[in-house]
Amino acid sequence: MERYDEGMPFLLKYENVAWYQDGTVRILDRRVYPREVIFVECKSYKDVVKAIQDMVTQSAGPYTALGMGMALACYESRSLYKKERKNFIEKASIELGNARITTKERYSKITTRCYKIAVDAIDNDKDPVKLIMEDNIKSINRRYKTMIEVGKNLIDLIPENSSILTQCYGETIIGALISLLKKSNKKIKIYCAETRPFLQGARLTASCFSEEGFDTTILTDNMIAYAMENKLIDIFTSAADCITEDGGVVNKIGTLQIAQLAKLYDVKYFVTGIPDKGMKKLDDVKIEMKDPEEVLICNGIKHAGNKVKAIYPSFDKTPSNLVDKIVTDVGAYNPKDLCKYFENKGEINFY
Amino acid sequence: MERYDEGMPFLLKYENVAWYQDGTVRILDRRVYPREVIFVECKSYKDVVKAIQDMVTQSAGPYTALGMGMALACYESRSLYKKERKNFIEKASIELGNARITTKERYSKITTRCYKIAVDAIDNDKDPVKLIMEDNIKSINRRYKTMIEVGKNLIDLIPENSSILTQCYGETIIGALISLLKKSNKKIKIYCAETRPFLQGARLTASCFSEEGFDTTILTDNMIAYAMENKLIDIFTSAADCITEDGGVVNKIGTLQIAQLAKLYDVKYFVTGIPDKGMKKLDDVKIEMKDPEEVLICNGIKHAGNKVKAIYPSFDKTPSNLVDKIVTDVGAYNPKDLCKYFENKGEINFY
Repeated sequence: MERYDEGMPFLLKYENVAWYQDGTVRILDRRVYPREVIFVECKSYKDVVKAIQDMVTQSAGPYTALGMGMALACYESRSLYKKERKNFIEKASIELGNARITTKERYSKITTRCYKIAVDAIDNDKDPVKLIMEDNIKSINRRYKTMIEVGKNLIDLIPENSSILTQCYGETIIGALISLLKKSNKKIKIYCAETRPFLQGARLTASCFSEEGFDTTILTDNMIAYAMENKLIDIFTSAADCITEDGGVVNKIGTLQIAQLAKLYDVKYFVTGIPDKGMKKLDDVKIEMKDPEEVLICNGIKHAGNKVKAIYPSFDKTPSNLVDKIVTDVGAYNPKDLCKYFENKGEINFY
Repeated sequence: MERYDEGMPFLLKYENVAWYQDGTVRILDRRVYPREVIFVECKSYKDVVKAIQDMVTQSAGPYTALGMGMALACYESRSLYKKERKNFIEKASIELGNARITTKERYSKITTRCYKIAVDAIDNDKDPVKLIMEDNIKSINRRYKTMIEVGKNLIDLIPENSSILTQCYGETIIGALISLLKKSNKKIKIYCAETRPFLQGARLTASCFSEEGFDTTILTDNMIAYAMENKLIDIFTSAADCITEDGGVVNKIGTLQIAQLAKLYDVKYFVTGIPDKGMKKLDDVKIEMKDPEEVLICNGIKHAGNKVKAIYPSFDKTPSNLVDKIVTDVGAYNPKDLCKYFENKGEINFY
């Protein structure tokens, strides 16, 4: 089958995100990459749920891991009678779909589709694992292909010799951007906000760009105003974990304050992604609070005292007035005009 | 001799900052506290210069370490003839005074005074080590006593049941604030920005407050807007590495963007410290750039790839319009009225 990861960095190769084979889902442990290159091995779909909750993979990684987890659920249930097997797989689709609350709408699209494929396969005495894996590859291809379209629209907004600030690890759009920039020969300098607590910007985004030969500089999350004041940054761009119909953006904690600083320093903020139909208002999005212990730790070492607390909101909400363009697969929209996206697109089949 | 560190946390005890004894200066290694409690042992004043440059101690720690380093320089030169000995100690005063460029004005005040004491002692056949140590304790007492006055003026600005956000580790003012808050019985909740790259907020400030029983919560540096938007923070306060006569503030990298967010979210920003007479304008301050490698590391572990760069400005500059009050030993001033401080104070003898 055709694949869209050619010419992309290590992290974007399909098998290096998450992959099902012979009763095991292997997920690259993004919590330690590039310091260590290790894969977490999941022997049950519940292991996959836990890996997603534990941030073994993040950004678009879970989209791939979820499909692989559904293939694994079919494998796990191979000895059950049809009815019990379908129940087991349905349960898996619900648990995987709800692994993280803020993104459960997107997750559930994937797991529900896989469940339907499984039911159809079981009813027709076909192998659900095989059919789900075929769908998984189609789904990954579709996302990569779509994000290449998004990347093309983003590149159109980036002048020659710009400096771009990224936040966290936008995964597919990072891969798309790299492969398109390489083809375009546009000279671009990359600044990556390191993105505590898990440092995905410093470890993942910076690795992708630097591996592919880009001039790549890390900023700690508290250097953003300094960098903007000193004219190091021309454009801020991030992906989004949710783009609401009212033009709001839910993304990795820290995005909101970078967007606010960008506004203050006249730096453009371009959000990339596929808007979430049905998510009407930014206000309605619930922010997932994760284990605060992660904030007291860095690189696996606890540096804070024992009596100290922390909070760990995974995401924050950036209102539409701080966003210059929402860059989609069919064009770049002013956030206030996002309704046009849905008019233009009709039925969206992305995940 | 009377001392002002009673009732203060571990980090504020004089001997736990930096101390000279028997040919050695011991400096608490703040880069790893509280995870490890170790002291760097300096056998020469050059070791002290290096320790300050390597951030073994920071904030007000170097003020103490510099005086101790000068005592050590006197010890090191004990076998030299008077003239050579004075030259050696003068050289030490210059090198120690210039250990960090942004704060060299303050540093040089201490080392020059120690040098004069040493010359006087040598000319009068007295022991310069002993006299410098006496001056060191006087100087530390003076700073602690002065910062207790600053603390009193700060507390007057803090309503009951406030939540206070700190940045980095303000050292003496943190000790003063803690001891005064304990006496006042004012209920205060503390949020500490973790302050990458060295996490002084998470490790040092949070340890001081939590050790003394305060409700203490760490925020990663990218959670500030989230915390302010969710009304977790009432007041932002920081110390300053330099307060210029035009009301500008030079402080740990990250202060500028917190001050900007505070302005956006109507959170008051109170700067504590002794304004720097002679430092006319914020624009004239030179920001020290440190080894970028520190940004690619956290808790001693390198997490970034090998082809990735970084920048590491130690400080940033917050203009007076983002500061609500500059809180000094003789009162809280609007930044634009800072000239009144110098009129009120006359000759300043702080360091």
